[in-house]
Amino acid sequence: MLFHVAMEVRLPPDMPADQANDLKTREKAMAQEIQRAGKWPQLWRVAGRYANISIFDVADADELHTLLSALPLFPYMDVRVTALARHPSAI
Amino acid sequence: MLFHVAMEVRLPPDMPADQANDLKTREKAMAQEIQRAGKWPQLWRVAGRYANISIFDVADADELHTLLSALPLFPYMDVRVTALARHPSAI
Amino acid sequence: MLFHVAMEVRLPPDMPADQANDLKTREKAMAQEIQRAGKWPQLWRVAGRYANISIFDVADADELHTLLSALPLFPYMDVRVTALARHPSAI
Amino acid sequence: MLFHVAMEVRLPPDMPADQANDLKTREKAMAQEIQRAGKWPQLWRVAGRYANISIFDVADADELHTLLSALPLFPYMDVRVTALARHPSAI
Amino acid sequence: MLFHVAMEVRLPPDMPADQANDLKTREKAMAQEIQRAGKWPQLWRVAGRYANISIFDVADADELHTLLSALPLFPYMDVRVTALARHPSAI
Amino acid sequence: MLFHVAMEVRLPPDMPADQANDLKTREKAMAQEIQRAGKWPQLWRVAGRYANISIFDVADADELHTLLSALPLFPYMDVRVTALARHPSAI
Amino acid sequence: MLFHVAMEVRLPPDMPADQANDLKTREKAMAQEIQRAGKWPQLWRVAGRYANISIFDVADADELHTLLSALPLFPYMDVRVTALARHPSAI
Amino acid sequence: MLFHVAMEVRLPPDMPADQANDLKTREKAMAQEIQRAGKWPQLWRVAGRYANISIFDVADADELHTLLSALPLFPYMDVRVTALARHPSAI
Amino acid sequence: MLFHVAMEVRLPPDMPADQANDLKTREKAMAQEIQRAGKWPQLWRVAGRYANISIFDVADADELHTLLSALPLFPYMDVRVTALARHPSAI
Amino acid sequence: MLFHVAMEVRLPPDMPADQANDLKTREKAMAQEIQRAGKWPQLWRVAGRYANISIFDVADADELHTLLSALPLFPYMDVRVTALARHPSAI
Repeated sequence: MLFHVAMEVRLPPDMPADQANDLKTREKAMAQEIQRAGKWPQLWRVAGRYANISIFDVADADELHTLLSALPLFPYMDVRVTALARHPSAI
Repeated sequence: MLFHVAMEVRLPPDMPADQANDLKTREKAMAQEIQRAGKWPQLWRVAGRYANISIFDVADADELHTLLSALPLFPYMDVRVTALARHPSAI
Repeated sequence: MLFHVAMEVRLPPDMPADQANDLKTREKAMAQEIQRAGKWPQLWRVAGRYANISIFDVADADELHTLLSALPLFPYMDVRVTALARHPSAI
Repeated sequence: MLFHVAMEVRLPPDMPADQANDLKTREKAMAQEIQRAGKWPQLWRVAGRYANISIFDVADADELHTLLSALPLFPYMDVRVTALARHPSAI
Repeated sequence: MLFHVAMEVRLPPDMPADQANDLKTREKAMAQEIQRAGKWPQLWRVAGRYANISIFDVADADELHTLLSALPLFPYMDVRVTALARHPSAI
Repeated sequence: MLFHVAMEVRLPPDMPADQANDLKTREKAMAQEIQRAGKWPQLWRVAGRYANISIFDVADADELHTLLSALPLFPYMDVRVTALARHPSAI
Repeated sequence: MLFHVAMEVRLPPDMPADQANDLKTREKAMAQEIQRAGKWPQLWRVAGRYANISIFDVADADELHTLLSALPLFPYMDVRVTALARHPSAI
Repeated sequence: MLFHVAMEVRLPPDMPADQANDLKTREKAMAQEIQRAGKWPQLWRVAGRYANISIFDVADADELHTLLSALPLFPYMDVRVTALARHPSAI
Repeated sequence: MLFHVAMEVRLPPDMPADQANDLKTREKAMAQEIQRAGKWPQLWRVAGRYANISIFDVADADELHTLLSALPLFPYMDVRVTALARHPSAI
Repeated sequence: MLFHVAMEVRLPPDMPADQANDLKTREKAMAQEIQRAGKWPQLWRVAGRYANISIFDVADADELHTLLSALPLFPYMDVRVTALARHPSAI
């Protein structure tokens, strides 16, 4: 099933650089692992914001929540999920 | 899969009573048919509003959209869908 | 009486793990105790968020507030309550 | 049980005066009947708006919804209900 | 003159218990003193929130602001005031 | 007592010019009469909008509501009232 | 360049069925033509709403606006455009 | 003085084509006349919307309002004005 | 030129009393100096909030911004500016 | 391609003056460098706020995001981007 996921990251500006870099490195690794598994087929940056718009392709909302809540940046994110259905005009 | 669905109905107050009654009768019939099929296990009225909060239990977002968009009152509704996952504290 | 309750949890990301774990453990225990008492019949996770949607079945708003405000995570929650009535189409 | 109810009335400005007056006359009669029954103990006008803020004292949300949805102006109202509990500092 | 006042309290969760208790004790004392003076005739808890809905009966907005801004919890509150007029249907 | 009043006018664009002009002429006459009576000491246009920001100086919220609800354009207005107190830094 | 486009359709419920069907047929034809041209690579239905979320791949905002404003349903749509950049974690 | 002006146009979709075209033709003529007078130095289309973002260079808010409220489409517009000051980093 | 300015002050509740008092004393002095210079002709307290509504009478937006951004409390304020034009019904 | 960019800066009021000054000095230098490169042709201060409204002229959203996210104040900014198209009435 496809979900549209909008993630907004709010890292405290005074977080030590080491901690921030570590979080981002682990986030990137996990994001790429999920992409390679075919469950995160689309990932774009929202221009001008520390935010992304993503498409997830998962079995159901349980799998989606498991993936999202395990992301290293999850405690710093505001995440909005939209359930997608097939569009009758899509080819 | 479970979805939380909030429906707000906005019938034009000047709709002829016959037309409104016909819509409501057909809406009720279809709502009860979907409930009997086990796909709409919870349906509550929001106190003070022509609105409901519902739980749907369907295969996926495609089935959900098919059911919702076939409701006779759908053209008069504002519908908000939230994907639900299992809660780790639920017994 | 039934109430729809939406709880959003906002734990500070820099809370020490011990403190957070203790809070969550006590929260879970109390949530399950209230469920077992039949007063919290439905509890779902909102996919992608540290949030839940719940149904409470209590005597009145006083009992509801007593239960909610005693939850260990209450000081970190934003809680929205909606009073539910019977829906005429519910079977 | 006490409920805080905020009602906002939106009559179409082009409704014929007869129809509007009839609605308002019947609304007033029913509002006063409910007040006399002790179920609508407080009713104030919001200054500058065709709106009121009310307190209802009813058995539960079912009775509240039955009363509100029977008001002649209900199809023209936006109604917001808030469940009230006893305040520990109230004397 | 009557004012509808909605107060939302936002105490920092990490405030020391002694400080919080002292604030709440002094808040309660002052709230009850104002009630006994007849200037705060209604005070309800909003179910599920650290918030109240109140009616104040004061000479004017100056007296209202003097009372509200002297409350011990005022620096932690978000307060919304609505001016109330007599409702033509009130009995 | 002083009130800050923001009025937004929403005339249907297809209202016949005669009707609109009549409304505006009567609105202007009444607005100037209230100003001359000293009860509407400030009246400004919000640049770019069919809206005004006003200060009313009236006995109380009842008088304010009586004045506002008698304006010919009242059925087409969205009105927001804010109660004003004396500012300690005002000279 | 990629744009995220959210379209919400608001057809008047009382539009004659012929007119609505004609609009939808022409909308579908044009949507599929743009997809076949490779400029509308993704198109999903938002579950429960007469709305879609789309990705457009066009030369620039001028081309995007030309395509969107020529859609037969454009006069009935609320459209929100978000400019997308490459995400550093995308593979 | 510079003002940032955001205009959103809401023509009723069922306005006869002749009337809409006449409005748009006159709007365009007046917009270009104001531009040639140097008072509307910037005018952009918001991609995907019947809306523009503009910069006006006028003597003051009175001149701005006179210009805007004389636009043929003004009765169909929602207009938001922001007063601009010189930025200390602008070259 | 006249501007409507709404200022909302958000002092951290845990700011040391000395620092807060110093800020407020300097704020008051500067506010009164600007008033005496005739550039801040109206200043009201919003009842129930640490906020004011003001009218400024200045040459242009540059002078307005210079005055506002020099206020000692400016770093703690949320400020909303509205450009005012003459109202055709003002006497 | 042109983008409308609204930047709102939220520096913590308790940031040490040295750190704030350093950030602002570097921000100004980089802003002027981008302006001199022709990629930031318009930059205005929003009167009364620590905010700006800007026009960027860049190749695409990737270049825009690269420029914005490299600004020294970026971690303290809320940035909103709007894609601009040519307006048919612009001369």
